[in-house]
Amino acid sequence: MEIEQKIAALGLALPELPPQTTTRRVRAVRTGNLVFLAGHGPFKDGGYPFKGPVPDAISVEGAREATRYNALALLSSLKTAIGDLDKVTRIVKIVAYVYAVPGFDRASEVANGCSDLLMDLYGERGRHARSAISVSGLALNICCETEMVVEVRD
Amino acid sequence: MEIEQKIAALGLALPELPPQTTTRRVRAVRTGNLVFLAGHGPFKDGGYPFKGPVPDAISVEGAREATRYNALALLSSLKTAIGDLDKVTRIVKIVAYVYAVPGFDRASEVANGCSDLLMDLYGERGRHARSAISVSGLALNICCETEMVVEVRD
Amino acid sequence: MEIEQKIAALGLALPELPPQTTTRRVRAVRTGNLVFLAGHGPFKDGGYPFKGPVPDAISVEGAREATRYNALALLSSLKTAIGDLDKVTRIVKIVAYVYAVPGFDRASEVANGCSDLLMDLYGERGRHARSAISVSGLALNICCETEMVVEVRD
Repeated sequence: MEIEQKIAALGLALPELPPQTTTRRVRAVRTGNLVFLAGHGPFKDGGYPFKGPVPDAISVEGAREATRYNALALLSSLKTAIGDLDKVTRIVKIVAYVYAVPGFDRASEVANGCSDLLMDLYGERGRHARSAISVSGLALNICCETEMVVEVRD
Repeated sequence: MEIEQKIAALGLALPELPPQTTTRRVRAVRTGNLVFLAGHGPFKDGGYPFKGPVPDAISVEGAREATRYNALALLSSLKTAIGDLDKVTRIVKIVAYVYAVPGFDRASEVANGCSDLLMDLYGERGRHARSAISVSGLALNICCETEMVVEVRD
Repeated sequence: MEIEQKIAALGLALPELPPQTTTRRVRAVRTGNLVFLAGHGPFKDGGYPFKGPVPDAISVEGAREATRYNALALLSSLKTAIGDLDKVTRIVKIVAYVYAVPGFDRASEVANGCSDLLMDLYGERGRHARSAISVSGLALNICCETEMVVEVRD
């Protein structure tokens, strides 16, 4: 439970995401030793309080903080899928979609909240490839949504 | 031919997509037991009649219907690649890009047309991870484009 | 060194990308015989001179030329990751993000600069699946960013 201990040591916690009552989709699918995770929003305190667009509705710094909750939501779903976050052998790739005003050129800074937390938790195993782009809208007007591919062991 | 029978039972059909005469790209690439599919638009009656942006040029409900044709186009290309749609062991992941007006927050509802059809056809094997985002433009002004990763057996 | 010879024969060169001094992220991660590459911008002459949005700040033809540099940047990172570009057995998938004005419907044309170069270099091995979308902003206001998945041998 090394990773979960590190999460707790940072004063953070894995959220309990709402059940997917209205869909048959899933938040993570394992194929071989890869797990593909759905786009996850910044879930906190039972809801999605971080709304875009950046920077009009939320600052770059606020959105950067929000993407830490993207990472925690992703890890929560990953734990559900594989049972133990210590089984991750590599964070392979993330795509960060940032809901921002047209011409916004700082999606990379926003996405660092997510990337840095993943690397703080996993160290060398957490060093991932990334795309970060600005988009014109996201569900629930959240300011950021992040998907992930990870490599796991049995 | 279980999946194709189900498609027919729903009153639907796999489209014959136009040949890629002007490109050397392909619509699906298999690597190991994964197939990565290109972004596919909503092909119907020999063309792409479903135009965005949502909701100004097409309603959410209309775009949701359109994404069913994204799914059929994806399955058509998948059949070409692997020969038999029954060889799919899992729909792993889709990304749905919805061409919409700025601030559109219902891409998820739009993408359900595609997701629901895939799950109706494949049942448990069809339960996938998904990202759904709003974008500011797509080729041919189509209202939606969907890419997919699937796991297959020999 | 067949692929690098072809690059030179086209009068092109693999760029030396700037070191990632401010991040612990990486530009390419190998898992099994797949390599997932980060989104790469059009690096040229030590910087990113190709700025969007298309077509207001750069023409479709100019952006198409720019995406050739996306391909070269991707190949530079890939060489760093696997040592020899001849080890690529298949270009599997690319996603091209084009920073454009709202409603831009020619992202596919823009992305052809990248796709065509990859196929010119790799021939049948270079025939890939692709998504090409218009987005409302990219880092540094670059006009295009491209990510890639490739299959490699040892």
